[in-house]
Amino acid sequence: MTGRNATGQTVKGLAEKVLAGDIPAAARLMRALEDELPEAADELRRLYPHTGRAHVVGITGAPGTGKSTLIGSLISVLRKQGLRVGVLAIDPSSPFSQGALLGDRLRMQQHATDPEVFIRSLATRGWSGGLARATLSTLHVMDALGKEVILIESVGVGQSELDISRVADTTLVVLVPGMGDEIQMMKAGILEIGDIFVVNKADKDGAENLKQDLEGMLQMKTDPAAHRPEIILTEATRHCGSDELAGAILRHRDYLLASGDMERRRQARARLELLDAIDNAFKSHLADRLSPKTLDELAARLVRGETDPDAAARTVLERLFQS
Amino acid sequence: MTGRNATGQTVKGLAEKVLAGDIPAAARLMRALEDELPEAADELRRLYPHTGRAHVVGITGAPGTGKSTLIGSLISVLRKQGLRVGVLAIDPSSPFSQGALLGDRLRMQQHATDPEVFIRSLATRGWSGGLARATLSTLHVMDALGKEVILIESVGVGQSELDISRVADTTLVVLVPGMGDEIQMMKAGILEIGDIFVVNKADKDGAENLKQDLEGMLQMKTDPAAHRPEIILTEATRHCGSDELAGAILRHRDYLLASGDMERRRQARARLELLDAIDNAFKSHLADRLSPKTLDELAARLVRGETDPDAAARTVLERLFQS
Repeated sequence: MTGRNATGQTVKGLAEKVLAGDIPAAARLMRALEDELPEAADELRRLYPHTGRAHVVGITGAPGTGKSTLIGSLISVLRKQGLRVGVLAIDPSSPFSQGALLGDRLRMQQHATDPEVFIRSLATRGWSGGLARATLSTLHVMDALGKEVILIESVGVGQSELDISRVADTTLVVLVPGMGDEIQMMKAGILEIGDIFVVNKADKDGAENLKQDLEGMLQMKTDPAAHRPEIILTEATRHCGSDELAGAILRHRDYLLASGDMERRRQARARLELLDAIDNAFKSHLADRLSPKTLDELAARLVRGETDPDAAARTVLERLFQS
Repeated sequence: MTGRNATGQTVKGLAEKVLAGDIPAAARLMRALEDELPEAADELRRLYPHTGRAHVVGITGAPGTGKSTLIGSLISVLRKQGLRVGVLAIDPSSPFSQGALLGDRLRMQQHATDPEVFIRSLATRGWSGGLARATLSTLHVMDALGKEVILIESVGVGQSELDISRVADTTLVVLVPGMGDEIQMMKAGILEIGDIFVVNKADKDGAENLKQDLEGMLQMKTDPAAHRPEIILTEATRHCGSDELAGAILRHRDYLLASGDMERRRQARARLELLDAIDNAFKSHLADRLSPKTLDELAARLVRGETDPDAAARTVLERLFQS
């Protein structure tokens, strides 16, 4: 580890540049964080006191609901209002996040004419996860860079690691008519996580019915005293309803601030981030202390059925905590 | 924790019943494992020495490639050969795993007439993951139940936690013509993880081209001395090619056994399972030692920007390892 990223540029000093609004520096720091360069963590640390200002909007929904188009349309509206926008795509099927595979510099260039829009996509990699960590790191850099609204796209309703409602201040759930609406709505926790429901492709048959079904279900599910989520009809391809949607997002932000829910959500997010950092620190500790040889020997005993994972794990842990 | 699952039946003694081929007992144990009842772990421990006999086949591919239909067709072929089959679906968009949401008993009943086919779907839940753990537990129970081939369906090429090639003995990658073939193939590691490539919907235009493209790419990517993956054309809706596909799976199994790769793969899987168990044991330890109050205080300091996650995590870990 030399503190240099793949392109050979040093990481040190990037935080200061990010705080000064330097976009290429932000992109380089994000990449260095994904590569887990130790100096990148130092830079991120410098940014922390300058975060917490951006409003984080999660956009989730099944593939094919038009999330990316909706985001494109939302960007235009928010920009017209003079807001600085960050976009983070962690949906592996999204045209935005295909950028992560094809190299997202290409996509960046399309937006090079508008320095106030920063789009970043995260490639998901490896069994061991790390997506939560990468999402939050990227978020903090965009926040410190001065983005006022950050849109995060994810397919992950209820899915491990991709459940964006744990990270977002405002969660949009995007539905479309005629996609097996009932199943869509029954999906684990969809009614619970949505702060705003978007019925996209509202020109399709059944849009009004879907809206009414949603209203009925929300009425049943929601505590009468609680904030009732708004339902917005959109046709993102024609930019219809996006103004209203942006309005609903800002109204929800105001509600969060006034009710004290914003603080509670931020606190929950910090707890999540802390637990993830503890897990990560433990893994480093483990990698330092558990030799590959010991691990292989234990794995071989497992394959031979001489032990079971929990018993072997307890042995390892006892050794770690003794030393 | 009383050692009873939601239906109030005791978990103790289920292992013995599973080994005797008791299907309802297997289903109950799987559920108890998902619910993380402590006695369920004890039962799983009793099964370990009786596992490792099933051949585990991972089936992965983008949504819409027809994985579920292909699995249905494969089940028929394998059953005709007298093999006992287990199916595990962890694809949230799959009709199989929608069973996990709608209650999979309903789906089970469709197969009640064939006691040698066991279908189980896993609901993905929670940010904290646990999917890897649930997948492996379910696998072990099916294995101990005497299933000879276990098919696991997952969308997860290269995705955190869902990367089925880490678990499977044989990984099938399912592609279809005309779905943006190049992007499909470029997707993180798709060429590396496939042991067999399936071109499904082979009646569509471009199937032969896709096969040739794949052959070319595999030729370039693969070490000439290594085992070259087979490419099989199928039309799963008409059961075309499924016989050949089943043959290719069994040929790959023979190759793994003869080359010693089977042992290496099982060893790698055990290592993965061990690391997951260590992580889990650490989390229990943490939950015992780190009070919610301490966690909340640290989170509040994070929100105020007074510390950063890594620094806070180090403090927590130091305290844990001292005590």
